[in-house]
Amino acid sequence: MNNLMMDFYELTMGQGYFNKKMTGKVAYFDLFFRKAPDGASFAIANGVKQCAEYLANFKFEESDIAYLKSLGIFSNAYLEYLKNLRFTGDMWGVEDGTVVFGNEPCLTIKAPIVEAQLVETALLTLFNRASLITSKASRIVRSAQGKPVMEFGSRRAQGEQAATDGALDAYIAGAAGTACTITGKKYGVPVLGTMAHSFVQSFDTEYEAFKAYAESFPDACTLLIDTYNTLESGILNAIRIHKEVLQPMGKKLAGIRIDSGDLAYLSKKVREILDKNGLYDTKIVISNSLDEYLITSLLNQGAPIDSFGVGENMITAKSNPVFGGVYKLVAMEKYGKIEPKIKISDNVEKTTNPHFKKIYRLYDKDGKIISDILTVYDEEAPSGTFTLKDPDVPWKTKTISNFTARDLKVKMVENGKIIYNFKTIQQTREYCQKELNTLWDEAKRLVNPHTYTLNLSDKLTEIKNDLLYNLKNDKTEQHAAAKIITTKLEK
Amino acid sequence: MNNLMMDFYELTMGQGYFNKKMTGKVAYFDLFFRKAPDGASFAIANGVKQCAEYLANFKFEESDIAYLKSLGIFSNAYLEYLKNLRFTGDMWGVEDGTVVFGNEPCLTIKAPIVEAQLVETALLTLFNRASLITSKASRIVRSAQGKPVMEFGSRRAQGEQAATDGALDAYIAGAAGTACTITGKKYGVPVLGTMAHSFVQSFDTEYEAFKAYAESFPDACTLLIDTYNTLESGILNAIRIHKEVLQPMGKKLAGIRIDSGDLAYLSKKVREILDKNGLYDTKIVISNSLDEYLITSLLNQGAPIDSFGVGENMITAKSNPVFGGVYKLVAMEKYGKIEPKIKISDNVEKTTNPHFKKIYRLYDKDGKIISDILTVYDEEAPSGTFTLKDPDVPWKTKTISNFTARDLKVKMVENGKIIYNFKTIQQTREYCQKELNTLWDEAKRLVNPHTYTLNLSDKLTEIKNDLLYNLKNDKTEQHAAAKIITTKLEK
Repeated sequence: MNNLMMDFYELTMGQGYFNKKMTGKVAYFDLFFRKAPDGASFAIANGVKQCAEYLANFKFEESDIAYLKSLGIFSNAYLEYLKNLRFTGDMWGVEDGTVVFGNEPCLTIKAPIVEAQLVETALLTLFNRASLITSKASRIVRSAQGKPVMEFGSRRAQGEQAATDGALDAYIAGAAGTACTITGKKYGVPVLGTMAHSFVQSFDTEYEAFKAYAESFPDACTLLIDTYNTLESGILNAIRIHKEVLQPMGKKLAGIRIDSGDLAYLSKKVREILDKNGLYDTKIVISNSLDEYLITSLLNQGAPIDSFGVGENMITAKSNPVFGGVYKLVAMEKYGKIEPKIKISDNVEKTTNPHFKKIYRLYDKDGKIISDILTVYDEEAPSGTFTLKDPDVPWKTKTISNFTARDLKVKMVENGKIIYNFKTIQQTREYCQKELNTLWDEAKRLVNPHTYTLNLSDKLTEIKNDLLYNLKNDKTEQHAAAKIITTKLEK
Repeated sequence: MNNLMMDFYELTMGQGYFNKKMTGKVAYFDLFFRKAPDGASFAIANGVKQCAEYLANFKFEESDIAYLKSLGIFSNAYLEYLKNLRFTGDMWGVEDGTVVFGNEPCLTIKAPIVEAQLVETALLTLFNRASLITSKASRIVRSAQGKPVMEFGSRRAQGEQAATDGALDAYIAGAAGTACTITGKKYGVPVLGTMAHSFVQSFDTEYEAFKAYAESFPDACTLLIDTYNTLESGILNAIRIHKEVLQPMGKKLAGIRIDSGDLAYLSKKVREILDKNGLYDTKIVISNSLDEYLITSLLNQGAPIDSFGVGENMITAKSNPVFGGVYKLVAMEKYGKIEPKIKISDNVEKTTNPHFKKIYRLYDKDGKIISDILTVYDEEAPSGTFTLKDPDVPWKTKTISNFTARDLKVKMVENGKIIYNFKTIQQTREYCQKELNTLWDEAKRLVNPHTYTLNLSDKLTEIKNDLLYNLKNDKTEQHAAAKIITTKLEK
C-alpha cells in the first residue's frame, strides 16, 4: 500500500490537530458497515490482516513529504512531524473469514488522533475491497451446492490488483481455483484454464485444434466445444479426440467446456452424448456470465454440470459493487478517561453506536449463532441466563440460557506492532467454511434471508441514550450562541 | 503490470502452439466492446498508452518460469522459449480520450500468435478498467453542466490501484481534482479535501473544530456543516467563523460542504443564509451518493450548488461496473497473405467483424461525426460522394459529400517498441473534451441517446459474407466426419 494512499482531507485535518497540539490525544475509531451487499443477512470480513500489515508499515517517504511541501499549504513543522510519524496505536479486528453483521465494529483502532485519522482511507479501501469480493464469492460458491467454482474474471476486474487479490478472496470464500496466474504464483492458489475460442480458430479445423491441445495436455485435456457449434461439431470432435488421440495413449478426455448458448439444454445433450460413448467421467464445465442466481437456476433445471467458471459477476461483485464500510470516531480519551462519542444523523439508522466496544457472539449448544451483542469494552461476557433486547423494538426480548459466548474481536496490533499470529490462506479458507456452518440455512438463503438482531448491552444502551440527550441539549446551546451572533451581523 | 498477469489458458494455449511449431505464425487480434456501459451511445477509450507500455515491457522473470515449472505441466523446451520471449509485434490503437463506438477495434495487435495470445488478459484488464471509469466520469462531469466535479471515492474503490488510477481517469474525463493524494503525487492531478465528521466530533464544540481548521487553512477554508445540524448549527457556526476568525485576518470563508439530508432544500437555505450575511462568494459543495442522475435532478431543481464531490458511483462505475471489452482473433497470415478469420455465434450480434481493419471516422463540415466506417486495412479513405450502408438494414443507405475522413487508429508499437509520442495527461484531458465536441448533443444525452451506425465497406461486407458462407459449409463437413466416426464407436 502506497504511503500516500489517503484522502487529502486526512492530511489537512492532521494539520488542524497538529496546530492545536492535539496529536497526542487518543481516539477510538470503529470500522463497520451498515448493510451487507446483495440483501444478505451477513457478510464475510476480509482484508483485516492487510490492515494490520498496513498499520505496522505506516510511514511517509522523503518523496511524499516533498510532494506535500510542493502544495504550499502545509507548515514545515507539520511536515517535519509527518516525516517521523509511525503508527503507534492498537488495532482489534475480527479474523479474516469471519461472518459479520451490519453495525458491528469489524475493526477498532485506538491511536493518537492524527495517526488514527491518517490511516482511515487505506483501512477502508483494504477492508471494503476484500470483504466485498469474499462475500460475493461465498454466495456464488454456495449456490453451486458443492460443485467446484472457478474464478475466471481477471479481464473484467477493476484493474490488475482487483484481479489478483479478488482471485485470492474467491479462493478464501471456497472457489476451487482461479485463472489468474499471478494469484497462483503470489499466493499458491490453484490455477486452472484450458483454451479460448481463438485457439480453435487459429487452426484450419476444430479437430486439428483439439488434437494439438490433447497432445500437449493428455493428462488434463478439457476442450472448449462451442466455437462453431456445440452439438453438431464441438462435442463430436471432442469424442473423436478421446478415441483417436487420448485412448491410444491410455488417457481420457478430462472435460469439455461450454461458454455460450442455452447452458441447461446443451449440458444435458452433451452429457447424453458423452455417456453414450462411455465417457461417464468426462466433466462438463460451464461458463458465460454466471452468478449465484443463474447457477441456482441451472441446478434446479437438473443441468448435469460438474463445475462452473465465473467471471465478471464475481470479480467485480457486479450486482452490488460497493462494500459500504465506514470509519467513525466512537471515543476519545480525556484526562485519562475514555469519553464516548456519537455521530447523529437525520437518518436514524446512520446514528453510530458510541464508545470503545466489544462484540460477544452467542452460540447455542449446536454451535449456531444466536445473536451478537455489543457491550462497552470492560463488560464481562454474558453468561448463565441472559435477556436479549432488540435495540429498535424495546418490547422484543428473548431470554436465553445454555449458550456460549465468544469475544469476536482480537487484538492484532499493539503499539504499532503486529502481535497476532495470522492464519495462513489455507487456514483462513477452512475457517471461513466453519464460520458459514455457524449460520442457520435460513440465514444463508440467497433471497430474503433470515436476519439476526444486533443487541446492545444495558450499559451501552444507557450511554448511547445519554449521549443523544446531551447532544440535543449541546446543539441547542451551540445553536443559540451561533444564532445570536449571526443575527447581530446579518443584513 | 506483473508479468504473470494473464489467464492461465493463455499459457496452456501457448504450449499447444509451441508444440505444433506455430510460434512464428502471425495473428491479428482486435480489442473492442459491443455496447457502451449505461446505455450510452459511445464510450471514451482509455488505457491505450498503458497497453503499449505493457507490450514494450513484456517478459517473464526467472521466478515466473520457476513457478510455471513447479506446476509440472509445461515442457522444458516451452519454458525455455518463454524465458526469452519478448513482444515483437505491432499495435495500432485509438488515442486515450477518443470517443469510440461499439464493435470497432480500439486496439489491433499483429504479432506471432503466442505473443498475441499471452498479452490478451493484461490488455483487456488495462483497457476495460480505464475506459470504464473514464466513460462513467465523463457522464457525471457532463451532468454537472460546467460546475466542478471532484473525485472522492478512494475508500469505496475496488482496491488501491482502482482508486489511484480511477482518480486519474476521472481527471482525464474532466473532473476538477481528486481526494486521492497518491494520484496527486504520481500524476500531478490537483488534490482537494477539507475535513470529515470525525474532525468536528473530536472537538468539544463544532465552533472550536471550525476555528481550528480556519486558523490552519485561512486561505482555503471549507467547512463541513452537517455533523450536528446543517441549518440550526453548522451554517451558523460557519458564519461565526467567517466573522470572528477569517474576516479579522482579512480572509473569507471559501466554502461549506453538505454531506447529508435533502441536498436541494439545504443548499437553497444555506445559500440564503450566506447571502444574507454578505458571503456571496462562499461556495456550496455537495457530496453524498451523487451520480449523473442525482446531479441532473439537483440542478433541475435550481439547487445553488457550486461543486460536487462524487464517490462510489464514479470510482466503481457502480451502475454498470464492467466494461465489456473483448479480444478476438480476426486474421492470420498464411504463406505471406493475410487470411481473415471470423467467430460466429448463435447470438448474431456476437459474430465478429473479420480481417485486419481500419476505422475511418467521417466528419461533417462543422466537425461533427457523421459515422464511422470499418474497412479492410488496405482500403483508401472514403472521399468525394460516398454512400453509407447500414450493415444490419441493407435498404437503409445515406449518401454524403462535403465530409472529411480520419484514420482513427494510430500505429503505436512496432516490432515491440513504442514508436508513438503519447500525449501528456493534460493534453489527453483537453483532447477528451475536444472529442466530446465532435458529438451531437443528442448523442451525449444521458438517457435514450441518439446512436451512430457503424458501417462496413463493401469490400469488408463481402469478405464477411463469404466467411460466414464458407464456415457454414466447413462446419457441415467437419460435423459429417465427426459424426461418422462417433456413430461407429458409440454404444
